[in-house]
Amino acid sequence: MAPVAGPVWRRAVSEGLGTALFLSTIVGSGIMGNRLSGGDAAMTLLVNSMATGLMLAVLIVILAPLSGAHLNPAVTLLEALQRRTAWGELAPYVAGQILGAFVGVAIAHLMFGQDIFTASHHARAGGAQLLSEFIATFGLFTVIRGTARRHPEVTALAVGGYITSAYWFTASTAFANPAVTLARCVTDTFAGIRPQDAPGFLVAQLLGAAAATGLFSWLDRRRPEQP
Amino acid sequence: MAPVAGPVWRRAVSEGLGTALFLSTIVGSGIMGNRLSGGDAAMTLLVNSMATGLMLAVLIVILAPLSGAHLNPAVTLLEALQRRTAWGELAPYVAGQILGAFVGVAIAHLMFGQDIFTASHHARAGGAQLLSEFIATFGLFTVIRGTARRHPEVTALAVGGYITSAYWFTASTAFANPAVTLARCVTDTFAGIRPQDAPGFLVAQLLGAAAATGLFSWLDRRRPEQP
Amino acid sequence: MAPVAGPVWRRAVSEGLGTALFLSTIVGSGIMGNRLSGGDAAMTLLVNSMATGLMLAVLIVILAPLSGAHLNPAVTLLEALQRRTAWGELAPYVAGQILGAFVGVAIAHLMFGQDIFTASHHARAGGAQLLSEFIATFGLFTVIRGTARRHPEVTALAVGGYITSAYWFTASTAFANPAVTLARCVTDTFAGIRPQDAPGFLVAQLLGAAAATGLFSWLDRRRPEQP
Amino acid sequence: MAPVAGPVWRRAVSEGLGTALFLSTIVGSGIMGNRLSGGDAAMTLLVNSMATGLMLAVLIVILAPLSGAHLNPAVTLLEALQRRTAWGELAPYVAGQILGAFVGVAIAHLMFGQDIFTASHHARAGGAQLLSEFIATFGLFTVIRGTARRHPEVTALAVGGYITSAYWFTASTAFANPAVTLARCVTDTFAGIRPQDAPGFLVAQLLGAAAATGLFSWLDRRRPEQP
Repeated sequence: MAPVAGPVWRRAVSEGLGTALFLSTIVGSGIMGNRLSGGDAAMTLLVNSMATGLMLAVLIVILAPLSGAHLNPAVTLLEALQRRTAWGELAPYVAGQILGAFVGVAIAHLMFGQDIFTASHHARAGGAQLLSEFIATFGLFTVIRGTARRHPEVTALAVGGYITSAYWFTASTAFANPAVTLARCVTDTFAGIRPQDAPGFLVAQLLGAAAATGLFSWLDRRRPEQP
Repeated sequence: MAPVAGPVWRRAVSEGLGTALFLSTIVGSGIMGNRLSGGDAAMTLLVNSMATGLMLAVLIVILAPLSGAHLNPAVTLLEALQRRTAWGELAPYVAGQILGAFVGVAIAHLMFGQDIFTASHHARAGGAQLLSEFIATFGLFTVIRGTARRHPEVTALAVGGYITSAYWFTASTAFANPAVTLARCVTDTFAGIRPQDAPGFLVAQLLGAAAATGLFSWLDRRRPEQP
Repeated sequence: MAPVAGPVWRRAVSEGLGTALFLSTIVGSGIMGNRLSGGDAAMTLLVNSMATGLMLAVLIVILAPLSGAHLNPAVTLLEALQRRTAWGELAPYVAGQILGAFVGVAIAHLMFGQDIFTASHHARAGGAQLLSEFIATFGLFTVIRGTARRHPEVTALAVGGYITSAYWFTASTAFANPAVTLARCVTDTFAGIRPQDAPGFLVAQLLGAAAATGLFSWLDRRRPEQP
Repeated sequence: MAPVAGPVWRRAVSEGLGTALFLSTIVGSGIMGNRLSGGDAAMTLLVNSMATGLMLAVLIVILAPLSGAHLNPAVTLLEALQRRTAWGELAPYVAGQILGAFVGVAIAHLMFGQDIFTASHHARAGGAQLLSEFIATFGLFTVIRGTARRHPEVTALAVGGYITSAYWFTASTAFANPAVTLARCVTDTFAGIRPQDAPGFLVAQLLGAAAATGLFSWLDRRRPEQP
């Protein structure tokens, strides 16, 4: 992640702006795809995965110089554990990410003439779903760690491309992000997840992130971290 | 935006060439998608969004060194307000953009054997549509401002990727451009918009552009503008 | 175009290798798309346009350092007229391009268990088709001229992205290449064109290439050619 | 391929990690596409080709600095024959690639609630299929050789883009990789291949790789290899 500066609350707003646009894209493109295709799930996931991956890449390009473009509480937590983000910045970053995510869902609903928030009835439970989230987040953190020393544009393209791919190769469509998971509880549309299924997703995501970080640190041991 | 030089009327022709190819793509790919898919709206918007985003990225790569590749009166207006474009260049730029946009629609119609211009009957009205245009243009200007100091290729990929995504996550399919909006009034095809719906779109677009410019200037305050 | 060296016949083989892989992609992906979709024209053109644009970008990246990656007799002709390619190299280049194109069609047919060559019955005639080829080639040469001084990777992405887009916004699906046009006469599949329709396409393509070269030279006059 | 260092068994783990994620993507996205589309083969291959190409590009970006990102026993064999990889490293690399590929298939099956391994019944036999694999691997090695001296990001984009394209222009959907071929024998899903059809694929792949390497060495003779 690129070095960033400036007051932490300004960077927290940057993270919130990013997750708001991100969630508007996830939820809005799901609604649009579902409407235009008359409920064709393959076509809807195709446009949903394409719109989401492109927007994520764009957001990382724009926001990396401003706030590091974490856009994901698990990223911020791992950055803090590895002492690349100060512990005191964890709370404002995560607050910005979660608040922005909910604002993004609300904006998507308003753009499509729906209620601001509605509890989701989309069941995503069971071992196969949890393994999917573990693998999806393991892959995401492998990509983030694997491109951390490159230009932000490389990270952006790799993360965006990975997410579009992961929508399809996992059974859960790769949430891989606690803020995204929480905010998708309040949309009863294509992208939603039942609130009672969210805690399992969060645990699987954190385990996947930790496993990837550990494995990649070992794989990459030969190259000392530049200061 | 890259620094440009040469007589202003030559740069206005560059802007007109760009918006002509841009509108030919928007309108032409909508006609082609609709014809080949037998009216499948999801498939048509898929190819429409893909063709439009790719062409926009290509046009920015080509025309950034010649005229800055604004391709959008709202961009030129904001550049003038921020004193990066001389006020005397606003009129020729915007004239080139609007004239080119109408020429582009005419060329698309001729390529598909249709009348040169026909008034659109595609209704795009109501608060959800106006909010969509506000958000679509807010996002576009966030992307433009967020990549303004990078290579034109980064701006090109980011803007093109954003527009393909925004076709799907907004209810209005992201016009986000006054010249595009005016020219799409005279095509009674997939991409059209009723003339009476255009003024609301223009106002929403200008408000979205202004809001993004203000917010991003504040977010980015720590980095002084290079001369 | 990048400077190249080595004996001209080796570079002609490079051009032939490129057009062979290019035509195999155009014809093969058309057959595959048509088969798998049960004749759905929109789905077939979607995969056809995607496969063709990606392959063209890849071929330009690979072959630009070896032979300039013209892959198109109209490009070689314009390069010769502008004295960037020696006149004596025109014939071997064009011969390599056309021969490679026919080999590519034959390989596609063999991969899909069809006769090596079959005359096409796909009618592509009339003014709208000819205007489409003029515009398609005009756009292609605008892209080529507009990226000629950049890295080959920029040209590759821009040309590939343009062709995927142009498949959709023109009524002819953007042949834009005389060697491609001739070789597509001998495939009676999705990508074919009736032999009697080819001459009109060739004329429209050459006129479009000349118009774009002239306009772009004027637009770009302020920047003298580097030696 | 980028120069790499560190103990060979750590690099073999890197190769195994890569082929595991690669096979999870190939098999998983095939299952997901088939399920969501209700067995629509064109839509399934579309998302399968897109997910596979994107993931392959991402894996090359990440793993090139760690192990060279061969991800393919034919690549490692050719590297050894050309003395760019030590012969003693061939066995651990290939073991890592094949083991990882089977692990990847197992993970995909578990994510979608299926048995860990099942023999495939998907027939892929006959001359047209073998020619397809020869051409697919010929093209892949042309791309690898043609970008070997560029940044890993260029190789990544070119190889990923090529594979997405080759899924469509070959009749076999471009396996082009012995480890992938072996592991796809044990999945009775969209991506599978009958075990009895695998040996022919392997022979065709090795011949295609050798032919491309030979041709490209000759085409590229003018540029001496940097040490």
